[in-house]
This record gives sequence, C-alpha cells and structure tokens, in this order.
Amino acid sequence: MASSNDKSTLVERVAAGDIRAVARAISKVEDTSKDAAQLMKEIFPLTGRGLVIGITGAPGAGKSSLVDKLALHYRQQGERVGIVAVDPSSPFSGGAILGDRIRMQRLGLDRGVFIRSMATRGNLGGLARSTVDAVSILDAAGYHKIIIETVGVGQDEVEVVKAADISVVVLVPGMGDDIQAIKAGIMEIGDIFVINKADREGVLATEKELEALLSLASREDAWDPPIVKTVATEGAGIQQLADAVEKYREFNSKASSSDGRRRAVARWRILELLRERLVVQTLGKDSASEKLDRLAGEVASRQRDPYSAVDELLR
Amino acid sequence: MASSNDKSTLVERVAAGDIRAVARAISKVEDTSKDAAQLMKEIFPLTGRGLVIGITGAPGAGKSSLVDKLALHYRQQGERVGIVAVDPSSPFSGGAILGDRIRMQRLGLDRGVFIRSMATRGNLGGLARSTVDAVSILDAAGYHKIIIETVGVGQDEVEVVKAADISVVVLVPGMGDDIQAIKAGIMEIGDIFVINKADREGVLATEKELEALLSLASREDAWDPPIVKTVATEGAGIQQLADAVEKYREFNSKASSSDGRRRAVARWRILELLRERLVVQTLGKDSASEKLDRLAGEVASRQRDPYSAVDELLR
Repeated sequence: MASSNDKSTLVERVAAGDIRAVARAISKVEDTSKDAAQLMKEIFPLTGRGLVIGITGAPGAGKSSLVDKLALHYRQQGERVGIVAVDPSSPFSGGAILGDRIRMQRLGLDRGVFIRSMATRGNLGGLARSTVDAVSILDAAGYHKIIIETVGVGQDEVEVVKAADISVVVLVPGMGDDIQAIKAGIMEIGDIFVINKADREGVLATEKELEALLSLASREDAWDPPIVKTVATEGAGIQQLADAVEKYREFNSKASSSDGRRRAVARWRILELLRERLVVQTLGKDSASEKLDRLAGEVASRQRDPYSAVDELLR
Repeated sequence: MASSNDKSTLVERVAAGDIRAVARAISKVEDTSKDAAQLMKEIFPLTGRGLVIGITGAPGAGKSSLVDKLALHYRQQGERVGIVAVDPSSPFSGGAILGDRIRMQRLGLDRGVFIRSMATRGNLGGLARSTVDAVSILDAAGYHKIIIETVGVGQDEVEVVKAADISVVVLVPGMGDDIQAIKAGIMEIGDIFVINKADREGVLATEKELEALLSLASREDAWDPPIVKTVATEGAGIQQLADAVEKYREFNSKASSSDGRRRAVARWRILELLRERLVVQTLGKDSASEKLDRLAGEVASRQRDPYSAVDELLR
C-alpha cells in the first residue's frame, strides 16, 4: 500500500490502496462536495475488478454478525474486504460512526478490512447514490470483496442491493405471516438466501415456506437460488455461504442475462444522480433557500398546496 | 355518501365520500397522470380534518393484524377508516392487490373501511409522494382515521411515517442485538411504541431495553412516548393503543412544537414533488427515452461513467 504523498492526486492514492485516501474520497461523495463529480469520473475507469456482494434482511436477522464473519473468512483467504453499511435510520445521530468503531474492534483493527457506514445527511436524498459511489471507490482501491449491508426492505435499500453483483437475503426462523408480505421483493432480489440463527426453532418450516415461494419464481437466468443455513455468531455455515457466492459468480460470468442486469443498474444509477443534480441545480446545494422555507410555512399553515409550491419554485 | 353523478367533478365526488371516486383519484396520483396536479390542488384545501396515524415496524412484527384490529376498533366507534399500505417490495407483482382483497375479506367488506396498497410503478420514484397524496384524498373524503402502514425502516418509509400526525413503531420480543441498530431511527420516529406478540418470551427484556433507549432520547416536545403491549391476533391491547393515540392527539393539539413538525413535513413534501417533476421534465413521463437507454448501455459496458452520462442528459 502506498503511503500518502502530497504530490500524488487523491485518485492515484485511492488506486494505490491508501486507506486514508479511500476514507477521504468517500467523505467527498457523501457530502456531494463540488469536486465529487470529477473524482468519480476518474474513479469509474478503475472499477470492475472487485466482487460486490449485497446483503439485506430485516432488523434482528443478524446481518452485521454474518457480514463480519464473511469478511473474516475472506481475510483468511488473503483477500482485502470493504464493507459499506447503509444506515438510513440514523440521520442525526453519531450511531453509525460508533457502530463502525465497535465493529472495527470486533474485526481486530485489521487493516485489510475497511468499514464505512453511510447515513442520510440533509434532506436532498442521495444516500443510494453515495453508497454505490463508495462501493466504486473501494473497488478502485483494489478491495477484492465489497459487501454492502442494508437494513430493511425499503425502496432505496432494494435498489442498492440490486446494484450489487450478487444479492443475499437474510431471513430468520419464525418470520411467520409476514414472509408473504416480503415475498415479491425477495423473489426479485435474492440470488442466495440465508436462514440465519438456524439453531432456533422453526428453521425447517421457514425453509419449506421459502422453497415453496422460490419454486413459484421465474428468473430470467436459469439460476436456482440456494438456501444456506447459518449461525453467524458461531461462524457456522459461513464456508457454505462463501461457496454459494463463488458458485453464483462463476454462473453469472457466463450468463448473457448479466448484461441486462448491469444495464438496469446503470440506468438506475444515472437516474439517481440526475434526480440529485436537478434538485441541487434548482435549490442550491443545501436546499436551505429562503423561498423553500417560506413555501413550506405556507403549505404547513394550509395557505397553499404542495403542488402550487413546486410551480412557484420552478417559475 | 353521494352516489356517483356524471355532472359532479371527481373532487366533488371525493368530498362527498364516494368510494369509487376515491379509488379513481388515488389511481390518478399513483400513475402521475397529467391532471393529478390539478386534482391535488383542489383536494388540498379539503384536508386537515382526519387524524393520520403512521404505523411502521420490521417484517414479522405483525403490523397488518395490528392495523386491521385498530381499524375494527375505530369502526366500532362509528368512525370511517382509510388504510394506505406502502408496499415498496413488490414493484412488478400483483401481490399488493391480492393482499388488499384478503384484508378486505378479513375486515368483512365493511364499506366504512377503505384499503389501498401503494406499490412502486416504474423507476421514477414517487412512491412516498403518491402515498401522502393518497392520504390527503382519504382525508378530503371524510375518513376520520387514516392509517399508513409501512414495512421496514428504509429512508422513504421513515419519511412517510414522519408525515403522519402520530407515528407508531411496532416491535416484537427478542429483537436482540439489532435493536441497537435501529435505535436512532426509533428515537426520532416513535410517538408511541407497541410491543406486539406480547405473549411471547422475552417481552420484559425488550420492554426494559426500549425503556432504557427512550430515557436517553430528548424530544423537542415534552411528550414521553408510551409503550403499549399487544397481541394483535387476539385483539389484546388494542383499546390501550387507541387510548395512547387519543392522548397524543390531545397533547399535540396544544403543543407549539407541532408547528415545526408540520413545517418539516411540508418541506419534505415539496422536495419529493419537485424531485419527481424535474426528472419528468428532463426525461419525459415514462423515462423510456432512447438517450437514457443508450447512456445506460454505455455505462454498463464501462465506456462511460454515470456522472458524464448525467452531464450528457442535462446538455
């Protein structure tokens, strides 16, 4: 790894795997700083080497433990691992950063593992966009595996996980009635399914239910998503998960359908960025325009409807 | 309730509580049809009478049962109830609509309860916007209570729940380690906390943990969020939940802090709408422009980066 050098550019230092440069580059895209666009234009050609693994599941599914154990597994193979945790629920707290420190300790302050939590800053959105940008930066920095971890099944979260090369959905035994509710989303997202906490009661029922749901799905590719049982806290099933990831990677490298997926991801990425750019163009970066504040006050007091307020902003 | 009458406008029929008109109006805002903006401008002055209750929680928390039981409770008081279920995970399936039918049956095809699931259509976003518009339509139609039900703790879902007059967060016993992960989000959103499935093991531990977290929170208003224990499937605790809702409504009607909340909601609503409008202006309604497709192909094959693609679209 190159040491930081005043004469080399930030992108050069990222490309050399300089950890502080990576952290700074991610902060830039997170804050939508003015030179973030130029930075990403230079980063993009350096990407495409790392394998991006998206891991999603409900709170309580034990995703963090699973991700940490999978990261340790890859470390033991001598690979460098980047973890980007999407944390949309704590926009104002220091929770994300505190979480990173705790996890860094758990992973033994290993310099081969880079962890970053992405949180919403301000209200102009862009969390999904800054997350995929952070993944690109880690990719450019030569991380072999980049894991995106997201809580929940929200709209943005689903998109972020779809943007990965491989998507893993984590369930726990006894999800019961609501497995139906997330059915359609699961069908579309999961390349691999994990039933974590598989030492709990009800694992067989959840597995049967999941198998039944998966048998109804029709994927464009001929991939048959495997179900892997894990007890992440004990490290059980992690090897099987890594094997499943590798198997899908091999499958996908030959499948022509992956072109369609890459194209859909590119389309979504362009749209996300466009959306953000247009709002910033209209309102300025911090959206703290007096005009917006005045209009919000008028809508709040019902003197005006939101649609007319937007007409006014666009005038 | 007025019957549908060719001579009266859609807004007049909505205002008269005509169920078919309500359904049609919601479809209009969901599809972002051309006259949706005009419709909402006329709807908006008719709103502000109903009480909007946001209910959120992870998959498996039993939200649907809880919402249905709460709706039945209000029906027994002679009130009309609208339910808007946000279903971001099934963009392509008929799952949402099927779900509505099943629930309508459970609620006994009661014409005093209106249920609508909102799903993502297309990729221009707008789910959050169309959800709050649907709530406004139900409000204008004279529904006394309007319940927004969302899965997960995603970014959009949090915003939608914040847009309600009262936000209820549903937990279940034994959420364990991940309660820390959703801590910050919970602090900010919940006006009332429900521990559902309170006949399960671990309810006391979850309650203690939640109490500890809540004791750390500092709300702008002096409201102390209550914890209500329910077993929704058996109807247990529903009266207590309704009491808590009423208590907060009373509290909030006197609190000056509710102005700030209404203003923040108005601001978010304007921004959501602005975002959508700008993208539609740039790309056309269906975003199926040839230019976007070509650019997505170029980004997918790494001939171009997403940032340059957006430059090109804006040129």
